[in-house]
Amino acid sequence: MSQNNEPGRLIWLTGLSGAGKSTIARALSERLQATGVKVEILDGDEIREVISPELGFSKEDRNMQVERIGYIASLLTRNGVDVIVSAISPYRSSRDRAIARSSRSFEILVSAPLEVLIDRDTKGLYGKAIRGEITGLTGYDDPYEEPIGSHLKVDSHRLRLEDALSLIEEYLNFEVSNV
Amino acid sequence: MSQNNEPGRLIWLTGLSGAGKSTIARALSERLQATGVKVEILDGDEIREVISPELGFSKEDRNMQVERIGYIASLLTRNGVDVIVSAISPYRSSRDRAIARSSRSFEILVSAPLEVLIDRDTKGLYGKAIRGEITGLTGYDDPYEEPIGSHLKVDSHRLRLEDALSLIEEYLNFEVSNV
Repeated sequence: MSQNNEPGRLIWLTGLSGAGKSTIARALSERLQATGVKVEILDGDEIREVISPELGFSKEDRNMQVERIGYIASLLTRNGVDVIVSAISPYRSSRDRAIARSSRSFEILVSAPLEVLIDRDTKGLYGKAIRGEITGLTGYDDPYEEPIGSHLKVDSHRLRLEDALSLIEEYLNFEVSNV
Repeated sequence: MSQNNEPGRLIWLTGLSGAGKSTIARALSERLQATGVKVEILDGDEIREVISPELGFSKEDRNMQVERIGYIASLLTRNGVDVIVSAISPYRSSRDRAIARSSRSFEILVSAPLEVLIDRDTKGLYGKAIRGEITGLTGYDDPYEEPIGSHLKVDSHRLRLEDALSLIEEYLNFEVSNV
């Protein structure tokens, strides 16, 4: 029996590949779960694999991917589940629309300078792009539209993970006490 | 704070267009909600419209649609939400796989003879198929693979809605007391 009909929160992490979205998502999920709430991570890569294998990386396909994530997130949040989205979601208008599907939403830009990302190159994508083996890498040769008025910007090259998490949690608590 | 970590139930209604899946889904959702649980209906038509506008009605596309519904349902059920799926889901193997993604699943065949469906023709689809205006209508000129060992068969031309609901509820209660 559910005791609580409050919708879940949507915490939407947007930013370039390798900026640290997934790392933050996993750590934040653990912290939130420790407070007793239900949390689900919607990871762009996983969603692509399971329900979007036909989608490529054109603007249209990227927008459809974001649309799907926003829809799935809204089904979860309206049932009281906190959702952490980790997805590049490069286009502002589709991202805004997807985020607006949930009523308690936070948009967080996870950011680091391109040189740092190229240096880290967690998935080897930047190297491939530089060598011309792939094209359409967001932030390198494909557009990324930074959020206007996002709730928080996390500079992953300047903040330690622990500090980023504390910042996000403080922000979330601020909302709770002000709604 | 969540009091209960039990997964939600997946009640998957499969059957031909016009058999009564959506009607049962809506009424069942109300009954379950009245017991205090969270319930979400995943309706095949709505899912198509929002996240699958590119899909047609080939076997491959129908299977992908069922795959998506199964995935979304699993995210909800593992967070304690009861999910009622209302989707033709004509192919056995993709349907079985989608249903198996959730741990407490019920497969319910909602059924009526084709002549009854043609007579009802709720959405006008059978008339269109008969006049040759559309092709690929499940059960008319496109395959429907009935479930093997489904948990319940609801003959919508023989059972009153109230009785169908009672039957489904009894079945669900039976599971709860036996797990």
